[in-house]
Order: sequence, then structure tokens, then C-alpha cells
Amino acid sequence: MSHAEYLLRPIGRVESVLVDRDAAPKQGDEGAPDAWLVFDPGMREGIRDIGVGTEIIVLTWLDRASRDVLVVHPRGDPDNPLRGVFSTRSPDRPNPIGLHRVQVLVIDGTRMRVRNLEALDATPILDIKPVLAPATER
Amino acid sequence: MSHAEYLLRPIGRVESVLVDRDAAPKQGDEGAPDAWLVFDPGMREGIRDIGVGTEIIVLTWLDRASRDVLVVHPRGDPDNPLRGVFSTRSPDRPNPIGLHRVQVLVIDGTRMRVRNLEALDATPILDIKPVLAPATER
Repeated sequence: MSHAEYLLRPIGRVESVLVDRDAAPKQGDEGAPDAWLVFDPGMREGIRDIGVGTEIIVLTWLDRASRDVLVVHPRGDPDNPLRGVFSTRSPDRPNPIGLHRVQVLVIDGTRMRVRNLEALDATPILDIKPVLAPATER
Repeated sequence: MSHAEYLLRPIGRVESVLVDRDAAPKQGDEGAPDAWLVFDPGMREGIRDIGVGTEIIVLTWLDRASRDVLVVHPRGDPDNPLRGVFSTRSPDRPNPIGLHRVQVLVIDGTRMRVRNLEALDATPILDIKPVLAPATER
């Protein structure tokens, strides 16, 4: 099967104390630090309705991942049997898109501080989505 | 701010009876039909551990979206006040990545039938992720 390819243009970057993949928590709720989302000035209108306290979903491009990996030892532990990457949250995968649910702590212009983000410093931000309420409340 | 750009290579495509954006449900739980995820044969190892009944997160590229949109009328209703796209689930956004939580109904080789997917026919699939259990069960 052949496909078109698509070009991602990041809307900003993460600023974090995390710089080392091996030292980073596997998930945000496993002790990840608070971090800044730094949006491009051109994205100001897009983020204007995000308020402090909001829970948001951050999509990132895990730019230090390997894209030619289809099976991994979960959580990087060689004692864990190999598993198809699409059944894991490994950053190594054909399209290394990170999915992070975080809470907004501070908004300062086009900078947004969020709680417990496991992404490394300088990770490109692709998209922000609201957390959806159940269908009955929409 | 200037950024590198990144190239997405789809891992498969959606097969759905939905072909018209205006007729498609806004969300999967708003009456979306069951649909097939058709993976490239080269992705077989990556999906090998996904079982029938599993809840998965499907990331897609909403290839019929507009990428130069930063504010929208939510749910396409002009009576709704304009809102920054990053506070909405509008497909129109700088990087139109779709996020869909679905249940696997049938697996047939590299084809996977899933429940209630609102993506249009032929939508490129970018990634599949497991739904994470709470941290205590990981």
C-alpha cells in the first residue's frame, strides 16, 4: 500500500528540566515535573480560550524517538517480553506522536505552565485539544 | 520562532461508509458507524498484540481539514461564538490530528473492525495507542 506523506509544522515547544530520555518518567503521573508550553506568537488566537485550571490534551512530536521500531520491551525493561509497539506507549514507533493529559497552572502570554509533563525539553508541540465531557454534557 | 518540520508516514487507512464531512457525526459516541482500520502489511508486527475487545486510541490525519484556521464556531454552528481551535475538537487546526477512542470488534489479518469511528473513509491512520490503566495498575 502506498500513501501520501504529510508535513507537520509545530505550533510551539516544551520547556522542561527533563533533557535525558533515560532519566525521564515513562508517564506524566509517574513523577514528571511541571513544564512550560511555549507557543509560537502566531498561535495566540488559537489558545485564547484556554483558562488556568483547564485539563488539556497535548500532542507532541517525540523527536528523539526511533521510527523504524515495531516491537519493544515494554517500559524499556529487557525482562519484559517483546510487544507490538501499538500495544505500548513507547516513544519509538513509526509516527512518534506523544499524548499527554495535563492541567494548566499558569498562563503568561503565549507561555503556559502545565503540571506533570514527561516530554523532554525542546520537544515540538503539534496540537492541543480539550478533554471532552461525556456526550450528555456536550 | 522557526521550527523543523516533520514528515508523517501513514500506517494505514480507515474504511468507512462515511464519505461526507458535513454528514459525519462530530464524535464517535454521537452515532458514528463501525469502521475498518486497514493497516499496511508492513505494520503486522506492530499490531500483533492487539486483541478483540481491547479499547484503543486511534490517531488519524484529518486530510480534508483546513490548516490555516485558528478560531471556529464550535460544532460548525454559526450561533456559537468564535472560539480558539485549541479549545475545540474542530478538524480545522494547524496540525489536523484526529484522536478517537474505540473498541476493537474483529481482527482479520491486518484489518481491524472498530466500534463508533467518526473518521471519513480513506482517512490516513498515524498511530495506535493502548488506553492506559491508572498508574497503580501499570
